Amino acid sequence: MAPSVEKTSDDLNNLSISPFGQARSTVEGQPLDNEEIRKMTDYFHATLYLCLGMIYLKENPLLREPLKVEHLKRRLLGHWGSDAGQSFTYIHMNRLIKKYDLNAIFISGPGHGAPAVLSNSYLESVYSEVYPDKSEDINGMRRFFKYFSFPGGIGSHATPETPGSLHEGGELGYSISHAFGTVFDHPELIALTMVGDGESETGPLATSWHSTKFLNPITDGAVLPVLHLNGYKINNPTLLARVSHKELESLFIGYGWTPYFVEGDDLPTMHQAMAATMEKCINEIKEYQKKARETGKAFRPRWPMIVLRTPKGWTGPRKLGDHFLEGFWRSHQVPIPDVLKDSSKLKTLEEWMRSYGPERLFDESGAIVPELKELAPTGLSRMSANPIANGGILRRKLHVPDFRDYAIEVKSGGIENLGSMANCAKFLRDIIKNNPKHFRLFGPDETESNKLGGVYEAGKKVWLGEYFEEDADGGNLALEGRVMEMLSEHTVEGWLEGYILSGRHGLLNSYEPFVHIIDSMVNQHCKWIEKCLEVEWRVKVASLNILLTSTVWRQDHNGFTHQDPGFISVVCDKSPEVVRIYLPPDANCLLSVANHCLRSSNYVNVIIADKQEHLQFLNMEQAIAHCSKGVGIWDWASNDQGEEPDVVMASCGDVSTHEALAATALLRQHIPNIKVRFANVVDLFKLIPAAEHPHGLSDREYAAIFTDNKPVIFNFHSYPWLVHRLTYKRQGQDHLHVKGYREKGNIDTPLELAIRNETDRFSLAIAAIDQLTGYGNKAAAAREALLNQRIKAKNYAFHEGLDPEELTKWVWPY
Amino acid sequence: MAPSVEKTSDDLNNLSISPFGQARSTVEGQPLDNEEIRKMTDYFHATLYLCLGMIYLKENPLLREPLKVEHLKRRLLGHWGSDAGQSFTYIHMNRLIKKYDLNAIFISGPGHGAPAVLSNSYLESVYSEVYPDKSEDINGMRRFFKYFSFPGGIGSHATPETPGSLHEGGELGYSISHAFGTVFDHPELIALTMVGDGESETGPLATSWHSTKFLNPITDGAVLPVLHLNGYKINNPTLLARVSHKELESLFIGYGWTPYFVEGDDLPTMHQAMAATMEKCINEIKEYQKKARETGKAFRPRWPMIVLRTPKGWTGPRKLGDHFLEGFWRSHQVPIPDVLKDSSKLKTLEEWMRSYGPERLFDESGAIVPELKELAPTGLSRMSANPIANGGILRRKLHVPDFRDYAIEVKSGGIENLGSMANCAKFLRDIIKNNPKHFRLFGPDETESNKLGGVYEAGKKVWLGEYFEEDADGGNLALEGRVMEMLSEHTVEGWLEGYILSGRHGLLNSYEPFVHIIDSMVNQHCKWIEKCLEVEWRVKVASLNILLTSTVWRQDHNGFTHQDPGFISVVCDKSPEVVRIYLPPDANCLLSVANHCLRSSNYVNVIIADKQEHLQFLNMEQAIAHCSKGVGIWDWASNDQGEEPDVVMASCGDVSTHEALAATALLRQHIPNIKVRFANVVDLFKLIPAAEHPHGLSDREYAAIFTDNKPVIFNFHSYPWLVHRLTYKRQGQDHLHVKGYREKGNIDTPLELAIRNETDRFSLAIAAIDQLTGYGNKAAAAREALLNQRIKAKNYAFHEGLDPEELTKWVWPY
Repeated sequence: MAPSVEKTSDDLNNLSISPFGQARSTVEGQPLDNEEIRKMTDYFHATLYLCLGMIYLKENPLLREPLKVEHLKRRLLGHWGSDAGQSFTYIHMNRLIKKYDLNAIFISGPGHGAPAVLSNSYLESVYSEVYPDKSEDINGMRRFFKYFSFPGGIGSHATPETPGSLHEGGELGYSISHAFGTVFDHPELIALTMVGDGESETGPLATSWHSTKFLNPITDGAVLPVLHLNGYKINNPTLLARVSHKELESLFIGYGWTPYFVEGDDLPTMHQAMAATMEKCINEIKEYQKKARETGKAFRPRWPMIVLRTPKGWTGPRKLGDHFLEGFWRSHQVPIPDVLKDSSKLKTLEEWMRSYGPERLFDESGAIVPELKELAPTGLSRMSANPIANGGILRRKLHVPDFRDYAIEVKSGGIENLGSMANCAKFLRDIIKNNPKHFRLFGPDETESNKLGGVYEAGKKVWLGEYFEEDADGGNLALEGRVMEMLSEHTVEGWLEGYILSGRHGLLNSYEPFVHIIDSMVNQHCKWIEKCLEVEWRVKVASLNILLTSTVWRQDHNGFTHQDPGFISVVCDKSPEVVRIYLPPDANCLLSVANHCLRSSNYVNVIIADKQEHLQFLNMEQAIAHCSKGVGIWDWASNDQGEEPDVVMASCGDVSTHEALAATALLRQHIPNIKVRFANVVDLFKLIPAAEHPHGLSDREYAAIFTDNKPVIFNFHSYPWLVHRLTYKRQGQDHLHVKGYREKGNIDTPLELAIRNETDRFSLAIAAIDQLTGYGNKAAAAREALLNQRIKAKNYAFHEGLDPEELTKWVWPY
Repeated sequence: MAPSVEKTSDDLNNLSISPFGQARSTVEGQPLDNEEIRKMTDYFHATLYLCLGMIYLKENPLLREPLKVEHLKRRLLGHWGSDAGQSFTYIHMNRLIKKYDLNAIFISGPGHGAPAVLSNSYLESVYSEVYPDKSEDINGMRRFFKYFSFPGGIGSHATPETPGSLHEGGELGYSISHAFGTVFDHPELIALTMVGDGESETGPLATSWHSTKFLNPITDGAVLPVLHLNGYKINNPTLLARVSHKELESLFIGYGWTPYFVEGDDLPTMHQAMAATMEKCINEIKEYQKKARETGKAFRPRWPMIVLRTPKGWTGPRKLGDHFLEGFWRSHQVPIPDVLKDSSKLKTLEEWMRSYGPERLFDESGAIVPELKELAPTGLSRMSANPIANGGILRRKLHVPDFRDYAIEVKSGGIENLGSMANCAKFLRDIIKNNPKHFRLFGPDETESNKLGGVYEAGKKVWLGEYFEEDADGGNLALEGRVMEMLSEHTVEGWLEGYILSGRHGLLNSYEPFVHIIDSMVNQHCKWIEKCLEVEWRVKVASLNILLTSTVWRQDHNGFTHQDPGFISVVCDKSPEVVRIYLPPDANCLLSVANHCLRSSNYVNVIIADKQEHLQFLNMEQAIAHCSKGVGIWDWASNDQGEEPDVVMASCGDVSTHEALAATALLRQHIPNIKVRFANVVDLFKLIPAAEHPHGLSDREYAAIFTDNKPVIFNFHSYPWLVHRLTYKRQGQDHLHVKGYREKGNIDTPLELAIRNETDRFSLAIAAIDQLTGYGNKAAAAREALLNQRIKAKNYAFHEGLDPEELTKWVWPY
């Protein structure tokens, strides 16, 4: 079939893009002698033998008997396709770790090629140290094989159970952003990062190459990406393996890197090429760092990277019958699938496995022979033993100032308008100040818009791009800083995850509607930390803190696209072991909640708070008491003391609280004898039964606040049904009337938007009246009056484009 | 401040990267005469005058009186920053549309710069034709200004109300993928696509540049991207505006494009440069298409694109007081924010607006002067009148074969194992065959894995990359095809959205766990089509059909990362006007549901079905009856006929149905007299009250199936609480016991995974027994026996790595 790209003169000079043949590489050099090549080949073959063993065998691990069907696992699972390329890279890094005493970790982008990582961990003894039953002998090897991809056993991705892993690679796209996260503020660390060419097609990965514009060569370490042009995905060629050399090289130069190519499948020449290339990269990294550190002047080098082009399923049979195997997508998973039924295929497998020479590679006991063992680094230099990948071990204490020092004065609830977020910025600023090397703030270009710009006093925005004269005019950019902003929620989230997984602390701030962009990443992080709880050697890491603002209720010009409070629906689906959601109603509560979250570990904390000025309700003492309980009655806003209330007005969320309190005031104004209890929820999981979440209230506690038979009008920040989903087992559920965002919006004033969704003060008061009994005509008159006020408010917005001032400037009147 | 990038010799030859100065461009040429330049400048100024009017004015639209505060809107909203660059581009395309009679649409990536699009639509009369009250006179202009970014008025993004828009640009990242979607199978169309440099930092945008590898120059149209290096985001410089020319040029060559640069702010030279460059691009596009179409040989050209570097807020004041405005992020939104209070600022604004010369540009009546009016195309050639952007108009009928012809034979329910998805592939194959130019199937490299490979008989995978010899071995690649696969859920989803919004039909297939990656895109599409329902001139488009498989319950080797059935939680939050969710239990139901979805319009349809072989339950007649109702009792699996059941066993989802039926059988085996009713839900929204969703059952209908007082054991495909969220208002809610995925998993066999989450047959039967009354010892004995069977099953999995065969090979025994 004819190539489809029109050739230009540039292309005609290009190298072939075949993965086969003698090594072709950008870097020349023969750093290895024949003996080294022989040993590295043996070591490589040992790892590949182990990979096949993991996929196939439950008995006869070293093939000391002829291979029979009963030695095979009855269900064959696992991925072979990228194993060889990953292992090859790992082994070459081992050489340089030993030579230069490097501090390195291995991030496996194609984490489903876990056999490559596991086999290397096993050969460097770490796996057996961590899991003594998988010992370095024939019995241990048998167990190591059998339990790979076996129920309750060893996962087929680089799961939390995998020593040395902080990146599972189950969902693709995050290897580079995770890698950068680990090296920020770890100046000696090199994150060797295998990037799959399939993964490279994902959006998150495609933009994360730009991360170099945020890496400071003085204060940060380095990422050495190895783009693995393995050629195929599950069932398709990869894009990057099927474009010309010119395009490929240009792409990475364009991204700001210096790409070095290593291509081919001939082992001796490939070893020389990879050894020379990787050494060149390490030396370049060291030189850039040295230059910057000695001069004290940070700059953005064109950091080196490697493009490794090898056949998928490398070292396997090129063909099986009439079908291509090596160098084709058929080698993606179990390379010879039908060995259980086809004895000739079983024979092929056996010959293949024996071709690696297990009898030479492993000694009588089943351990790797000493001359090969020596190739691996030792102690904590082993990549699978690097404590950075179990970052909880290294987690330094976060020095959090006393949040009470940032309290705003609230003499009386519901009187004064102040900005909760701008105030919280001061607290965050001082956390940055107190923790100059292990706390960063992340966000997609919204920190200032989110009223958190105050943090720049302590740490500016990291920027290694070019500077213009305008930047001096409040640009807050710096070569070294503490705030990380790129307009990619994926990248900043990936950085933050890498940063905390390697033992540091941080917080992401984002617009509420667009945090859905990273639903899947947050999902995966939840799964990672949940699994870590089951892995006894994993030490807890700092929580992933997500501060959401620019919320649904204040989108008067952005409109419907910017109205989506549904991220917490996704978070609520995750394990109660790891998720926490807080909706502080005002500034002092926000401080208390932020303090709590930042000090916590192993959670995903979501905090939702609006950035605009709001009425303030609680002084610091009240806020602490309220947030400690997470939910409670606000006595000062209630008038049912000592009596049964007629109605409970409840709220969760700051804007929602404002409107609910206004509704309470309206009710009391229009129906003087009415008894209204006001309750507020800060910690959303208080609503769920205690059996289902560690924060859940007991039924008795719940009823003490919400009653079990009185009408509850609950004004909620997000979709109303989420509250029902949390409370469906509660007594009194039938009396619970939740108002919230019902996916109705436009470019509305705040009050108008609330009216559309019936979360405004008038609608809430009307909803309460509709549930009242015993107030007869008075209630009917009040209802009529409130309806008229609601119409008036809408008309005012329609004609003036503003919320009616006399209504929104409401303060608590009692 | 010193530039931070280390200079190389290459860079030293680079052009400046400043946005100011005389035009600098790749393409030389002076295509315009002075008169043309003058007119184009006037027209440009007219659009910019309108942009400022929209942001500021409610009265005095043509400044025929001195500007006073009372002429201003009291709340100022809108975005100025990208308006000039977008309008400039739009106007230059107008010239070429007229010259070459082009069929073009304008896609505004930075859609929040809607004033640019709206002002052009207004000047070419389309806006007034569509909205007669916004007439082309002074009164119409006044209304046009006032209602921009005004409650209930004109949105500040390129919303569905915007003529000519099919891309809102509220959430950034999808302009290029949408553009490609529109031009697939529209060989004459050119999608002029403005890409913001902020948007360019997002992952989805960063990878979507690769879309050219899937564009066939014979059968498809072309995308002409204009990357707008506007320089700044809300509060930061953009990455691409702050790297060297060499990097920028390399990046786009690397992505496979030929970038042409147009840079500067000097209007006369910029007009010449843009005119010459855009004309060159259009001619290149035409030449490539001609060559391919004449030879009949498709190839992948390096398609042209434009990099337009202009100052943010171009044509505004460079400085306001001490602060930079033009060429800085301060010009992002309302460029002079404090005009309401500061009279000197008001003066500045007035002078600025007058500098465009409104008295020259508009005639006495307030209409644009005739010599300028002539610059715009007419009729359907006007980009804001192109029917492609109101694709429903063009929607061709989808020729769907009779789905009953694909029925699988089911003599008796619950006996035979067959693959529902592989069977559905035949139906999809023939839809492809019948609709060779207006239906495509999309997916991220999973079509084959999802057992849909049968479709390749009718349409192969489009691939314009290089070909290797292996591809002939079942690669199913072709230069022209009907299946679109790239490992980017974002890109394929964006293509599909663009494809249907421009009048065609399609379906996305994806792994269930990773569809969360596009939560936010689907959200935004839901919002788009919901709003379209309110816009009377928008004609309905085909539904966005999403077929999810590789579901949570069959992840025995991928493990926990691949277990997430929560996408439908996100979908359930969207408007009931637009979302539909179906979980067909077997092959015939899947056909019936797929048929229904493919024929529908303006919905987001989510279909969830497993790809593995399953027991089949309903013959085609039964399936049609069942799917038409969406929920129903399966009489053949129930034995409560004519009596009250002891328990209702209900299910939703194929694997869930399998286990629930097995549980029913176990109950009847262990407790012979028990009366079990079996109910199944296909259409999830049947569960919700009729008042809340058009598909919802009335309470009476609901009770007729589920009773209002009997225990219901409901086995659900997704998270159990979602069913409670849908049913919390139903009578009998207290008797409803939902089992589903509770975020507990590992590399488990299917049965083991079910046991972990108590969705297995044994746990379900036990749950039923726990709610039984009146069966005394018999029930207790049955419970004991079932517990033992469950333990046995777990042990078997643990030791053998398989589901116990005698248990999973269950068939319906009655």
